[in-house]
Amino acid sequence: MTIETMSTSKAHGGVQGVYAHDSEATGTRMTFSVFVPEHEEGEKLPVLWYLSGLTCTHANVTDKGEYRAACAEHRVIFIAPDTSPRGEGVANDDAYDMGQGAGFYVDATQEPWAPHFQMRTYIEQELPALIAEHFPVADMGAQAITGHSMGGHGALTIGLRHPDRFRSVSAFAPIVAPGQVPWGEKALGGYLGQDRAAWRQADAVALIEDGARLPDLLVDQGDADQFLTEQLRPELLAEACDKAGIALTLRMQPGYDHSYNFISTFMADHVAWAAERLRG
Amino acid sequence: MTIETMSTSKAHGGVQGVYAHDSEATGTRMTFSVFVPEHEEGEKLPVLWYLSGLTCTHANVTDKGEYRAACAEHRVIFIAPDTSPRGEGVANDDAYDMGQGAGFYVDATQEPWAPHFQMRTYIEQELPALIAEHFPVADMGAQAITGHSMGGHGALTIGLRHPDRFRSVSAFAPIVAPGQVPWGEKALGGYLGQDRAAWRQADAVALIEDGARLPDLLVDQGDADQFLTEQLRPELLAEACDKAGIALTLRMQPGYDHSYNFISTFMADHVAWAAERLRG
Repeated sequence: MTIETMSTSKAHGGVQGVYAHDSEATGTRMTFSVFVPEHEEGEKLPVLWYLSGLTCTHANVTDKGEYRAACAEHRVIFIAPDTSPRGEGVANDDAYDMGQGAGFYVDATQEPWAPHFQMRTYIEQELPALIAEHFPVADMGAQAITGHSMGGHGALTIGLRHPDRFRSVSAFAPIVAPGQVPWGEKALGGYLGQDRAAWRQADAVALIEDGARLPDLLVDQGDADQFLTEQLRPELLAEACDKAGIALTLRMQPGYDHSYNFISTFMADHVAWAAERLRG
Repeated sequence: MTIETMSTSKAHGGVQGVYAHDSEATGTRMTFSVFVPEHEEGEKLPVLWYLSGLTCTHANVTDKGEYRAACAEHRVIFIAPDTSPRGEGVANDDAYDMGQGAGFYVDATQEPWAPHFQMRTYIEQELPALIAEHFPVADMGAQAITGHSMGGHGALTIGLRHPDRFRSVSAFAPIVAPGQVPWGEKALGGYLGQDRAAWRQADAVALIEDGARLPDLLVDQGDADQFLTEQLRPELLAEACDKAGIALTLRMQPGYDHSYNFISTFMADHVAWAAERLRG
């Protein structure tokens, strides 16, 4: 599998790169960014995945996430994929919450999405293999994952489905129960069809109800987030974790909204949380 | 003088805002951003100005500068103005290094620029008065200023012309001698005319040669910066400071380029440098 280097730039002692490749999973050209901290020749570092929210590409967190200083300090590789396939010939929707920029980290089974919207396979299988081949990554059986909003949903569901692979799972303002909120009902209905049984593998709260377990979780949520009560509903995750015995650290952050001003404020905490578990 | 609040968002305990106003100096609508750290009711904080480089608006450093954590720690207000007047009816040039996005922090005397390109008056007079009126700023006789590239030129020249007003001056990859490099010769010739005597007030090296003094200066410069040898030429500043007895700390940063990956890496150092002098 080959990758094209779009740009590299020294940052906080390491290298911030942007890369592109032809994805088999999506059948499109996909772009992602990787920050590799300064390290010894031959040294391997653990990885932290960051999955982005609606409308984002790799660039939003790469520009605004303020993760590089913390990743350099903790010597963690930071990977930021795109949120969907893109381009001519790829289905789209006029709304911001469906289609390009809104892949929801699922493998679509429904037309017109199925041919390209295979983001679950892309993020769970194809991209990790590509990363392992091209970057100085340590044990891919001990990864960390986080994400924001739709990407928080992605991080929680991928983490819950692969407890063997992830030592650390956290999220910023995640969609915790897409099957119970408008964004999720639209997207999962569109990508996976109207049989709600098929949605449960793509819903963190449903996965926990169905038996998925993780030792612990960190979630930050701004209490001035405009999407809090209708789309995010962290209380549903708190209830599910409580019943399941999952140690959820849910921090309601007073006055914070849904933007990168919120994410960047708490990014260093999530990197530290991941680093502690990756090397613990 | 009234300002319009375009957005505010909590970040690193403080408030990141974006504001707009009708400028008398430029005769246009101007946008700027201000970060105000968390502070006590009634408390006043010192200010650090950041002047941006070619093509930038207030948004580039606001998104990518990674200054908020350091400004919150040191309790310094961070102000990011635009780099020129903009809009219909404002003169422009097809090139990126002249016209809109390239005001060079001078008051243009030449047509077609003179009616709107009055960035020296805007940054030195009008905007400070506006800031003092609307934000919890401490003594405007003890400010700090920094900037990048064209904005580094702005910071150095404004600092050198007003040693009574600025306790701290620093720069990232500044154009130190616009009168001796292509970017500067084009811009100063265009805005100020071909009489080079008029350029000396807009050239840090010339100002020092002509007697301007500051106690000290911090300059960071990447040695992989593509503009280093032709446009930036920090050795000219080093020579002028040496002759003048100005304590220049010039740090050549190995492997760093001209981008915000460079700026954000060393931003916290510049905020700390400013804070030490503002409160020293």
